[in-house]
Amino acid sequence: MPSLSVPPPKCLQKPLVVPHHHMFGPGPSNVPPRILEAGANPVIGHMHPEIFEIMSDIKSGIQYMFQTQNKMTLAVSGTGHTAMECAIFNTVEPGDSVLAAVNGIWGERAAEMAERIGAKVNTIVAPPGGYLTNTDIEKALSKHRPALFFLAHGESSTGVLHPLDGIGQLCHKYNCLFLVDSVASIGGTPLYMDQQEIDILYTGSQKVLNAPPGTAPISFSERACQKVFNRRTKPVSFFLDLNWLANYWGCDDKPTRVYHHTGPVTAFYSLRESLAVLAEEGLENSWERHETVAEYFHAGLESMGLKLFVKEKVRKPTLTRLPTVTTIVAPYGYDWKEIMSYIMKTHNLEISGGLGPSVGLVLRVGLMGCNSSKANVDMVLAALRDALKHCHRSKV
Amino acid sequence: MPSLSVPPPKCLQKPLVVPHHHMFGPGPSNVPPRILEAGANPVIGHMHPEIFEIMSDIKSGIQYMFQTQNKMTLAVSGTGHTAMECAIFNTVEPGDSVLAAVNGIWGERAAEMAERIGAKVNTIVAPPGGYLTNTDIEKALSKHRPALFFLAHGESSTGVLHPLDGIGQLCHKYNCLFLVDSVASIGGTPLYMDQQEIDILYTGSQKVLNAPPGTAPISFSERACQKVFNRRTKPVSFFLDLNWLANYWGCDDKPTRVYHHTGPVTAFYSLRESLAVLAEEGLENSWERHETVAEYFHAGLESMGLKLFVKEKVRKPTLTRLPTVTTIVAPYGYDWKEIMSYIMKTHNLEISGGLGPSVGLVLRVGLMGCNSSKANVDMVLAALRDALKHCHRSKV
Repeated sequence: MPSLSVPPPKCLQKPLVVPHHHMFGPGPSNVPPRILEAGANPVIGHMHPEIFEIMSDIKSGIQYMFQTQNKMTLAVSGTGHTAMECAIFNTVEPGDSVLAAVNGIWGERAAEMAERIGAKVNTIVAPPGGYLTNTDIEKALSKHRPALFFLAHGESSTGVLHPLDGIGQLCHKYNCLFLVDSVASIGGTPLYMDQQEIDILYTGSQKVLNAPPGTAPISFSERACQKVFNRRTKPVSFFLDLNWLANYWGCDDKPTRVYHHTGPVTAFYSLRESLAVLAEEGLENSWERHETVAEYFHAGLESMGLKLFVKEKVRKPTLTRLPTVTTIVAPYGYDWKEIMSYIMKTHNLEISGGLGPSVGLVLRVGLMGCNSSKANVDMVLAALRDALKHCHRSKV
Repeated sequence: MPSLSVPPPKCLQKPLVVPHHHMFGPGPSNVPPRILEAGANPVIGHMHPEIFEIMSDIKSGIQYMFQTQNKMTLAVSGTGHTAMECAIFNTVEPGDSVLAAVNGIWGERAAEMAERIGAKVNTIVAPPGGYLTNTDIEKALSKHRPALFFLAHGESSTGVLHPLDGIGQLCHKYNCLFLVDSVASIGGTPLYMDQQEIDILYTGSQKVLNAPPGTAPISFSERACQKVFNRRTKPVSFFLDLNWLANYWGCDDKPTRVYHHTGPVTAFYSLRESLAVLAEEGLENSWERHETVAEYFHAGLESMGLKLFVKEKVRKPTLTRLPTVTTIVAPYGYDWKEIMSYIMKTHNLEISGGLGPSVGLVLRVGLMGCNSSKANVDMVLAALRDALKHCHRSKV
């Protein structure tokens, strides 16, 4: 036996130290002790009857959160990006036409994913902070005749809550599947998968749900399943193949489950707990709370002289500011990075800069799930006020 | 606002109940409290300096476990199957020739993954429980001239520990990358990535490491990186694209890290802790312990009249029985499913049946990481003895 050429690393002799921060960026959000503790339960097998029961509870919780009766509802063993690939890999075949609404980073990423697997991709672009009208969308659907239309409901890079009403119906008029990314929005603002005729909907565990990142709820309509299960080619990923996932999650009609992959069982525990918390509060109460807190926050920002990046503020039901992630125009004359660091250092509070098209233009504050409270708003406003007082300001 | 059509599910009103089992199947294995507790630390951002330090510690821990100096060493945000796809997606382009050694389920799955992305796949097959000689392998390399050769080091479906010596050198003689699956073996038996000239090596967190499933260590040699970073086409997966992962893990030379995906931070905590445990014990001690316990277990099984599925038992260094997962020939005249259920019900102890080519032929017992002890062997032997006394035996 040869001797070891790599010695045990010294850095691992130090104990793990994890600080507590107020996680008020666009995600992950804070995880309450109840959910963290759920995840610290003992590991059981990924094919035990007990885990199948937990997965079945998760499925019911997702159906509630998504407001869907879809049998094909499950959680992908990965983060939001895995769900995004799961949606695209299963519904798109090489040569299919895909249309992506781009009004921030998520549309760009969906377009890139579809391109990588050989789809013909077209985009319709809204300016950062803006959104598309149903007329824009119908024009593009009629021109490109896509098999799939992607739209981010909560565009966390720009702070836009995209209106959804009527788009599913338009897609179906043009024989197109409607794929919606609700990672940053769901649970914090109304969404009705079935009534809004959304064909594929996914989210992540680490936003409004307040679970650790690592699982991603997803659901497929009957119409989406028709396409998925009548493909000519196999999806590029075995791991994300819905035929296998459906069986593992008991969503098909087969009498037994076949080993596919080792599900992240402890992440399933915390996901189940986070869905239980949401069910206890009730979706409508959660929506109402996020909206009330967001209005309080936005009013507070404006009374400090700060500007919101998403200009239009129409009354319900066409609210276009995300109640979960707020984009604030980067205060004139300041270095936004300095503000972020100052607030983290002085107030132990994470807020974030822009992402993709909003880099340099905005500060982003996420108040999601348990973090959405007036007390937290007061904390953020005080931190911002303090930062504007103490950070460097150019004399321009 | 329409009203809710799906009410809060009643099943989520019941508290989460997770039983404790002795996890002596082929994985996941039991997670000691120290590692579970690490995973229950507060969530911090996936781009915080603190998480980058934890990721850097993980990288060092993997380099130690793998015995490699590879800069391109990281953990994929997913289970072993994700790492398998990460390895194949990044190193294989459509039309590339891939050779997979099939002596159980893992080779079949690697072949399927490569086929899905358009590779020309050939296999060399060893009978279940057997293994391939270097002469077999060289013949196949010379015939098929693959760009990548896949081999499972620990074939957990059959219980074979495949010899590795000399294969890396053969691959390189034929200008082929050597990809090794060490999910079930690493940490429990000697493996030297650099000295054995392995180009891509991966494992999972839930076996010898005793962390919850959900992260998968992986490493790429300089030679593998040459191929990955000089591809003509983009890998099919954005999420698993090594260009992005390398940057997120600080393995490239870029000064800043760009947001790719939200890493499962709490799973990183427990992975780090599990690597610290391994470094504390020391690799050589861990190998020695697994081997001693396996020999004690195998002797105990044979003294009960049970037979081991892997026939050949040659002395080191060509040991071909996995010390981590033992395959026992299904006892003649019994229903293997009844034995499994009896042992779970009566002794609260998970053992498993066969998988893929070994279904119906074997019982599988995994004793990995903290589970590898003589006390646990005694527990398993007593349970088996009891099961053989009480389960139904046909009169044939």
